[in-house]
Amino acid sequence: MSSATWTDDTAFETALSNAAREVDTVMDRLISVPPGPEARVFEAMRYAVLGPGKRLRPFLVMASARLFAVSRRSALQVAAAVEMVHAYSLVHDDLPAMDNSDLRRGRPTCHKQFDDATAVLAGDGLLTLAFEVLANRDTHGDPTVRCELVSALALAAGDQGMVGGQMFDLIAEHRPDLDIGAITRLQRLKTGALIAFSCEAGAILGKAPHDARLALRGYAHDLGLAFQIADDLLDVEGTPEMTGKPVGQDVIAGKATFVSILGVERARAQARLLVGQAVAHLDIFDANTELLCQTARFVVERRA
Amino acid sequence: MSSATWTDDTAFETALSNAAREVDTVMDRLISVPPGPEARVFEAMRYAVLGPGKRLRPFLVMASARLFAVSRRSALQVAAAVEMVHAYSLVHDDLPAMDNSDLRRGRPTCHKQFDDATAVLAGDGLLTLAFEVLANRDTHGDPTVRCELVSALALAAGDQGMVGGQMFDLIAEHRPDLDIGAITRLQRLKTGALIAFSCEAGAILGKAPHDARLALRGYAHDLGLAFQIADDLLDVEGTPEMTGKPVGQDVIAGKATFVSILGVERARAQARLLVGQAVAHLDIFDANTELLCQTARFVVERRA
Repeated sequence: MSSATWTDDTAFETALSNAAREVDTVMDRLISVPPGPEARVFEAMRYAVLGPGKRLRPFLVMASARLFAVSRRSALQVAAAVEMVHAYSLVHDDLPAMDNSDLRRGRPTCHKQFDDATAVLAGDGLLTLAFEVLANRDTHGDPTVRCELVSALALAAGDQGMVGGQMFDLIAEHRPDLDIGAITRLQRLKTGALIAFSCEAGAILGKAPHDARLALRGYAHDLGLAFQIADDLLDVEGTPEMTGKPVGQDVIAGKATFVSILGVERARAQARLLVGQAVAHLDIFDANTELLCQTARFVVERRA
Repeated sequence: MSSATWTDDTAFETALSNAAREVDTVMDRLISVPPGPEARVFEAMRYAVLGPGKRLRPFLVMASARLFAVSRRSALQVAAAVEMVHAYSLVHDDLPAMDNSDLRRGRPTCHKQFDDATAVLAGDGLLTLAFEVLANRDTHGDPTVRCELVSALALAAGDQGMVGGQMFDLIAEHRPDLDIGAITRLQRLKTGALIAFSCEAGAILGKAPHDARLALRGYAHDLGLAFQIADDLLDVEGTPEMTGKPVGQDVIAGKATFVSILGVERARAQARLLVGQAVAHLDIFDANTELLCQTARFVVERRA
């Protein structure tokens, strides 16, 4: 499972960029700028969601939806909602009150491009719009499915998921003594919960049986941790040209990360172990899980 | 319709404070503080929603739900969700990046009591939790109703409602030349949309016919404007002891308001006219609309 496996795999990269283009088209349609003075917040929302990015979470939604023969239209609606929630979290996390980041994906962050107030509102608008999209008839014909999507996304994004994780993270910045258990829990909340929702969404849309949902959740949890370790490694080994943001921030902040605790080599080994574990969860499916397997490998071997 | 009409009406005030106590009990149950370091964001959410306040929007939900014999449990769930969205909007609006307010309802604002980052997250958490509550089975047995509530709240709270209105308001601060049409539109977005949702929610819960929903929306729009004019009047005529926040802020900022354009007397007359109009919308109902009529009178005659 060397980096050559996926860098040569242009078919996977093509699938990833095609999906990104499709979900961008949907988001572009969902956020059109009105004529009034409030246009500014719509422009900031578009800036935040339609900029460069891998669209990994939308891809996970679409790859999991394929396992259950869900319509592409349904999957794309949920994929757009997930990306809006991810983008909102980045906009708010980048604020001066939080991580105070000026650069994201090689561009000024939303509050640098607009202003702090507009960035707060753009994040609020994106979060709200995500729920509007999920509750919309276009997303699924069955209202029970739509309600389940709203509930699951709210749980993943809220105080018991991403918001709780960001709070934990802000407090953890002053706690370089955190152990691996605490960091694992922090990351499960902060990034793992939304990744888990992305993977489970396909099963919700396809009304899949409980064991399928459990398997996807297991896959997602291992994938999420592997993803975070890869992020920590990029902060140590990457360059700003590769990642589109400043590197070495965790070391400068004296922050406890998987890499600061395990060291580079053991962290990398752990990430690969998690990828193997993630893929093993998919054994129960008869359907072709190749896209999800490739995603797991991509996540740890990526260079940005 | 003098102020004596309602200040003597202790039955109405009792109904209002009883409803406030009930909805606080529900919110208290919905936001319990977990043991982890993320507890801080839960504490900030509780500080924001469980402090002093009239709970006017929850009361509107409950009063409109009574017209359609909706269960008290359903109404209370929606009432709690609306108050969470209202509280989140205040927490974010008070941030240094926005209105930079230190005092709200006689207490330090959320970011003064905690810190800016925690206040951003507490607002995010409350908004997310509101949707989780609406999508929950406890709110209504019929998932179509729950989806409709999620859609309607998202529309009222999002970029085409409250978030758009706050963006408009921030831009309007530098526009003392705004005319009455622009200010009316601004307030319909910023405060009117959530008040309209509160009134319509009872009809959604009760699966009421379209004309009933239209009537409640008409009532709510007039009520919302009357409410805003009363707010502008309090900013000119009130004292910090009465309102629990600094007064005279609009004049200091040179902001265009209903009062700056119409003058105190005409603004007051306009508010009373709107109350009459609001109440007239309720004529189509056979059910007892007295609580909604009293609410309309209360809104313009209130002293805080």
